[in-house]
Amino acid sequence: MNTLSPTPRTQVNRGKNRAVLDRSALHDFLSDALLAHLGVIAGSHPVVLPTAFGVNLDGPDDGGTLYLHGSVAAGWLAKALEHDVCVTITELDGLVAGRSAFHHSMNYRSAVVIGRARRVEDPTERERALAAIVDHMIPRRWETLRPSTRKELAATAVLAVPLAEASLKVRAGGPVDEPEDVADGIWGGHIPLRRVAEAPVPDADSEGAPPPADVAARAASFAVA
Amino acid sequence: MNTLSPTPRTQVNRGKNRAVLDRSALHDFLSDALLAHLGVIAGSHPVVLPTAFGVNLDGPDDGGTLYLHGSVAAGWLAKALEHDVCVTITELDGLVAGRSAFHHSMNYRSAVVIGRARRVEDPTERERALAAIVDHMIPRRWETLRPSTRKELAATAVLAVPLAEASLKVRAGGPVDEPEDVADGIWGGHIPLRRVAEAPVPDADSEGAPPPADVAARAASFAVA
Repeated sequence: MNTLSPTPRTQVNRGKNRAVLDRSALHDFLSDALLAHLGVIAGSHPVVLPTAFGVNLDGPDDGGTLYLHGSVAAGWLAKALEHDVCVTITELDGLVAGRSAFHHSMNYRSAVVIGRARRVEDPTERERALAAIVDHMIPRRWETLRPSTRKELAATAVLAVPLAEASLKVRAGGPVDEPEDVADGIWGGHIPLRRVAEAPVPDADSEGAPPPADVAARAASFAVA
Repeated sequence: MNTLSPTPRTQVNRGKNRAVLDRSALHDFLSDALLAHLGVIAGSHPVVLPTAFGVNLDGPDDGGTLYLHGSVAAGWLAKALEHDVCVTITELDGLVAGRSAFHHSMNYRSAVVIGRARRVEDPTERERALAAIVDHMIPRRWETLRPSTRKELAATAVLAVPLAEASLKVRAGGPVDEPEDVADGIWGGHIPLRRVAEAPVPDADSEGAPPPADVAARAASFAVA
């Protein structure tokens, strides 16, 4: 499972040269990215919703497990279990100013995972999954928090999606222009984009108190503006 | 059409207090956001792909039209026309450090649009749509570019999705914690996140040449790092 072996469902058909087949590159990207979009079939149309996620490479699935969570009352939950789901995780890295409209593009890293979601019921796997999701947002945060209550756990659904069937596509750098437009001396290039954090903002009840080390470290892990 | 009137498909069921029903807020958000995720039904599973987009509020659809484009050879294109699609546009604005795992969250703005995509064939609407997509990436860029060639236009498919059936959900600020955790004096707050641009990078053929005004202005429109 060191290589991403595309299936017909995850084969990159357009821009094949941008497909990355190294599974560790997928893992590195997932570790860096923050936001997933979960697609489920809801009757005659799809629904795509933004969501946090976590990953456990030592989970029960060969190739790693992606975890999502939500309210047990969420409408998408039952739908996610009826059909295979698609989880797409994208980070936008730049805007590509081509020498023609046709060659404008975006720089990005995007992982597409397709598979059957499994509702996690085992208490140990549930706890590890929730820890992975919280620690994905703010590393080492879980160990600083009180245990979840029975009521909180009962209100939370955890879904596991195997990373077995996944693709990673990366576009970077400047435009790929027509030679005649280049010869015309038109400017071509790209605008790099990245995410930065501002200093942690305490809520009204923590006014004036410094953030804990994990929160401060998380903010510092982005290039602070 | 000044209000987003939720249908059963776009009704915000979880976190109803975060639903924004002002259509102009949707338009403002779409103008600010850069990346869409298009969800289509591909047989027995959904596929979610990242894509650029543009908006025309004076387009043919009441409430505005969202435009997507792609290669005429793209596999998702035929699928996008077979069933209704879901286009979700999300910007991540922060990480919310609650006083318990349960109250960790993310700050975000997210629009969900569900509808029947229409393949745009009319040359005038196609040109306006492509201009909207390019100018969405880099404002006022279209007018600086040479006209598209017949070959480029023949290779490009344009899809229109009406903004009629859409929802906007916004989460901002700090955690909503349990009173007993607040009473315990635990720190609660959030880490604001935002997108910044670096200076435009010329490609090898434009080495040393300053970027055109539209590209420079686009980079400057983000808080430049």
